Amino acid sequence: MELDNAKGTRDFSPEEKILRDKIIKVLKETCENYGFNPVETPIIEKYETLAAKFAAGEESDALKEIFRLTDQGDRKLGLRFDLTVPFSRYIAMNPNVKMPFKKYMAGEVFRDGPIKTGRYRQFTQFDPDIVGCREMIADAEILALADSAFRKLKFDFYIELNNRKILDGVLTDAGVKEKDWFSVTVSIDKLKKIGKKEVEKELTANGMKKDKAEFILDTLSPEKDSSATLKKLEKTIKSAEGKQGIEEMNELLGYLKDLNVKTAVFNPSLARGLAYYTGPIFEIFLNKSSITSSVAGGGRYDRLIGNYLGKQEEIPATGISFGVDVITEALREKDRLDEKSVAKVYVIPIKTVKESLSIAQELREAGINTDIDLLNRGISKNLAFANSYGIPYALIVGERELASGKLNLRDMKSGKEEALSTEKIISRLKS
Amino acid sequence: MELDNAKGTRDFSPEEKILRDKIIKVLKETCENYGFNPVETPIIEKYETLAAKFAAGEESDALKEIFRLTDQGDRKLGLRFDLTVPFSRYIAMNPNVKMPFKKYMAGEVFRDGPIKTGRYRQFTQFDPDIVGCREMIADAEILALADSAFRKLKFDFYIELNNRKILDGVLTDAGVKEKDWFSVTVSIDKLKKIGKKEVEKELTANGMKKDKAEFILDTLSPEKDSSATLKKLEKTIKSAEGKQGIEEMNELLGYLKDLNVKTAVFNPSLARGLAYYTGPIFEIFLNKSSITSSVAGGGRYDRLIGNYLGKQEEIPATGISFGVDVITEALREKDRLDEKSVAKVYVIPIKTVKESLSIAQELREAGINTDIDLLNRGISKNLAFANSYGIPYALIVGERELASGKLNLRDMKSGKEEALSTEKIISRLKS
Repeated sequence: MELDNAKGTRDFSPEEKILRDKIIKVLKETCENYGFNPVETPIIEKYETLAAKFAAGEESDALKEIFRLTDQGDRKLGLRFDLTVPFSRYIAMNPNVKMPFKKYMAGEVFRDGPIKTGRYRQFTQFDPDIVGCREMIADAEILALADSAFRKLKFDFYIELNNRKILDGVLTDAGVKEKDWFSVTVSIDKLKKIGKKEVEKELTANGMKKDKAEFILDTLSPEKDSSATLKKLEKTIKSAEGKQGIEEMNELLGYLKDLNVKTAVFNPSLARGLAYYTGPIFEIFLNKSSITSSVAGGGRYDRLIGNYLGKQEEIPATGISFGVDVITEALREKDRLDEKSVAKVYVIPIKTVKESLSIAQELREAGINTDIDLLNRGISKNLAFANSYGIPYALIVGERELASGKLNLRDMKSGKEEALSTEKIISRLKS
Repeated sequence: MELDNAKGTRDFSPEEKILRDKIIKVLKETCENYGFNPVETPIIEKYETLAAKFAAGEESDALKEIFRLTDQGDRKLGLRFDLTVPFSRYIAMNPNVKMPFKKYMAGEVFRDGPIKTGRYRQFTQFDPDIVGCREMIADAEILALADSAFRKLKFDFYIELNNRKILDGVLTDAGVKEKDWFSVTVSIDKLKKIGKKEVEKELTANGMKKDKAEFILDTLSPEKDSSATLKKLEKTIKSAEGKQGIEEMNELLGYLKDLNVKTAVFNPSLARGLAYYTGPIFEIFLNKSSITSSVAGGGRYDRLIGNYLGKQEEIPATGISFGVDVITEALREKDRLDEKSVAKVYVIPIKTVKESLSIAQELREAGINTDIDLLNRGISKNLAFANSYGIPYALIVGERELASGKLNLRDMKSGKEEALSTEKIISRLKS
């Protein structure tokens, strides 16, 4: 038997997992700091629940990427491919939740798609959402939360903002037919990556007249700052939907100011692929990082839950999805983290196992993460072990030291040893 | 379309998830406090990896309960049914990990089996293990960790200890053939539940002579305390394996004393179903709880990883598995917890949205979990909302209060309101 991971999946060693856990902790604490409550749904869903989103026939590639399975009762099931669909089902099955409902969900999602660098068949999403608020203040809360989280992780980052109504408004003004909006939007989305000239080429190659393509791209190019961009668009946009988009952008930027969010920039060419967005859309990017893709993205989807439930009424919702995998990669690159162990101190008994176990318990009760030699090894082997795990301190417990009441605490980095009472050791290790 | 969960799975509302998260946090912190490092493996494994454990043909029901699936490349895959098999694969694929390797793994596992009360097809395990130490000190560390975790959760609990070698030794002394050990052990395991008489009936019904059954049950019944039980067995046991088991039990009890673990009791009739245990076995039970099944269980499995790898050499390992679902149920029963929100305070703007958003940010920056009205509702509706989520405080921000520099902080339980500066509010909410 060849031992291997299932294709497209991977293990996380302590070194990698410690870092992932750190990120998830910051995201969790930030969500709770903003009053978002945790919710959990299962990894397995009924297949028809997962497929319902695709009833319209679009995104059929995504449908093929659902991992399907059956239970012993031959029920058709699937693994969730995102957290939005299960959450929509949750809202549908719990019509009495008090609105607005602010929740976050974290977990593994699965897509049976092609593998490439940085793309896996199991990956982790972390999604805060607000359901039941139509106003821009909800989108502002989502963005303030994201801003806080990335500040806590000490990233140099910026948030790009747009509004589907602005995009749609400009396309209406340019006379682009609604059936072409999606494909045109996909081209516009590449503006940042491939530049104006190439996008114009793509649009004209697809049959758009040159002057129309130029008008669209000139209108959607960002100016030197958000207010300059806004001013340009206020002058240009004629359609009612576009004007409403501008108004929403104004409101949103106002709320972001009140919330002291300084990292958001209006970029009217930001499109995001998904057709279900109905209002603000946003993506977060890093400066000074080799990662050029977005590390979080989301927007308002006022129709998705309602459609999904087969209802005509809108159930307004907005949210963001943090890419835990890409954020981990970026954090490793930025901080050059390589913590291999959670232990702060490693106790080395020298013929003092009994007493050393008591001392380890004392340190643990004091809240200090403590490991201890279990193999009765000598000092040098033990120091090499502590070193290989990057444990910052070693505590050497010999019989003479025990008698004197002072134990040798060794700083593993400097190699400096100091004889200290247990009390002093605890306060040193806690600082 | 009928909206429903996949059979045997369930959602966790904020109220349930807050409690689950609390337990997982305590388990995680306790593991790290004992120097165990986190590891993660995927939910999907190659089917042959999962099936390898069952090569011997035993536990074929468990094999049927594996959820199977294929990817688009027609590879045979399955969902993990426990955390031990994926971890064994991990150790096999990472032969250079420094031993002893102390790790914990937490996650969802899946079994396509019959549904009954408290039994689900997706459930959560939390497993600390130590690989690479043959000595009882490793088992003692595992038990000290478990003892700490249940103390932190303020449970009234006890740990039952036994050793497979003692069980096997008594059966050898009684002349039971090795092929019958497993079925006899299954009967003995019921001693606590159905009593000596019924187990004796079961044994004799299966063809064992009465005096042999009596000898076994007398020998394996616990005395008034661990040392009395040990003394009885020291006198009775003749076989070499049984004597080694007694010696290991003596050692383990000694280490537990050094580690200040006071909750462990030697019960020679504790059997645990799984055939792969080779030394100490343990289960944790609650007093004063409606839950009579164990809430955690484990033991030493020195041959499992080696067998699994197709190697003859032993790779010693010991560990425990916490049942997160049953612990959650027990904690809810014990503490009557019904926390519905993580928010500590709910800000109610009265025509002061801008300023209220700033105040909310100030509270959040100070580390206070803060929610705020997003729907521009009146005071009474807002107070009802805060009340429905059980948020302990409301902060009412009117224009007059803003001008005076003192805001009304309302204790939602007592209804008492107090006018305080933001500074005082922060220190009050942090205490």
